[in-house]
Amino acid sequence: ESRLPGYATHQVGVAGAVVNESSGKVLVVQDKNKTVNAWKFPGGLSNPGENIGATAVREVFEETGVRSDFRSLLSIRQQHNHPGAFGMSDMYLICRLSPLTHDISFCTQECLRCEWLDLVDLAKTKDTTPVTSRIAKLLLYGLEKGFDSIDLSMEEVPAVYTGLFYQIYHRKLPVEHK
Amino acid sequence: ESRLPGYATHQVGVAGAVVNESSGKVLVVQDKNKTVNAWKFPGGLSNPGENIGATAVREVFEETGVRSDFRSLLSIRQQHNHPGAFGMSDMYLICRLSPLTHDISFCTQECLRCEWLDLVDLAKTKDTTPVTSRIAKLLLYGLEKGFDSIDLSMEEVPAVYTGLFYQIYHRKLPVEHK
Repeated sequence: ESRLPGYATHQVGVAGAVVNESSGKVLVVQDKNKTVNAWKFPGGLSNPGENIGATAVREVFEETGVRSDFRSLLSIRQQHNHPGAFGMSDMYLICRLSPLTHDISFCTQECLRCEWLDLVDLAKTKDTTPVTSRIAKLLLYGLEKGFDSIDLSMEEVPAVYTGLFYQIYHRKLPVEHK
Repeated sequence: ESRLPGYATHQVGVAGAVVNESSGKVLVVQDKNKTVNAWKFPGGLSNPGENIGATAVREVFEETGVRSDFRSLLSIRQQHNHPGAFGMSDMYLICRLSPLTHDISFCTQECLRCEWLDLVDLAKTKDTTPVTSRIAKLLLYGLEKGFDSIDLSMEEVPAVYTGLFYQIYHRKLPVEHK
């Protein structure tokens, strides 16, 4: 957990899947200026020093006007040679968020469309990306079996040398196993 | 999933927890030149363009001489202001690996000790880091309930614009839900 100094090799992006559990709908956007107008979850790059959940909540609000709370980490994607990343590698994390507000007021500079879409429709449509489609299916599975079956929960754990805290994400560990 | 160009803000490190399922032992090391000699999982920084699982397998071999196979992603840790990271943020991933060989031939430049330690003992000892202790407990839970209960599995999903593939990690989705 400590090692030789390195250098930054990755940009980190975070997307937020804001799921309304009672309606089964999820907040999706279509990017402006894309040849393929595919539904995807709002998201963007982490600011320096910003936690994963904070990036998701901020980006969702900036793009859609919807306020939300962080609930869990769902997925991690790594890609090398990403065309927008200029030789860097790209780590993209997808979080599950709960909506605090529902009215959409989307950023017209970034987005062409923004909607609450039924998860069943998002899982079926061709107008989306393979990753979004996969996460829609995962969320449907979570909606059916309980989100506990798909969530990674976050906890803070003390760091040895610094007195700071790590944010660590893993499958929920029952209290009697801690 | 595509966005404005950014810059690399994170170094990415990967540790490998090599678990022998039949003996319940896990491969651990103690770093050389540390004031606190704590057991931890072998690991280190990703090389540019290197996948998560490949980093874990490579670092485990370099530090311990043990060959292993990638099985799953277990945990993600984010930390800002890491003392060795010079202002960068730090993303640390812990993978579960299966041993292919068992004889230890550890790197004496990096490690003071290297052993196959009983997971029960690693979960109990004070001579470890809080993160290692937590993952030891998670692995014990997995050993008892099946690793399916703690694993994030990896799949490759096509990227829209590039024709490349993403490596995506999330909870295993039963075939009938895909």
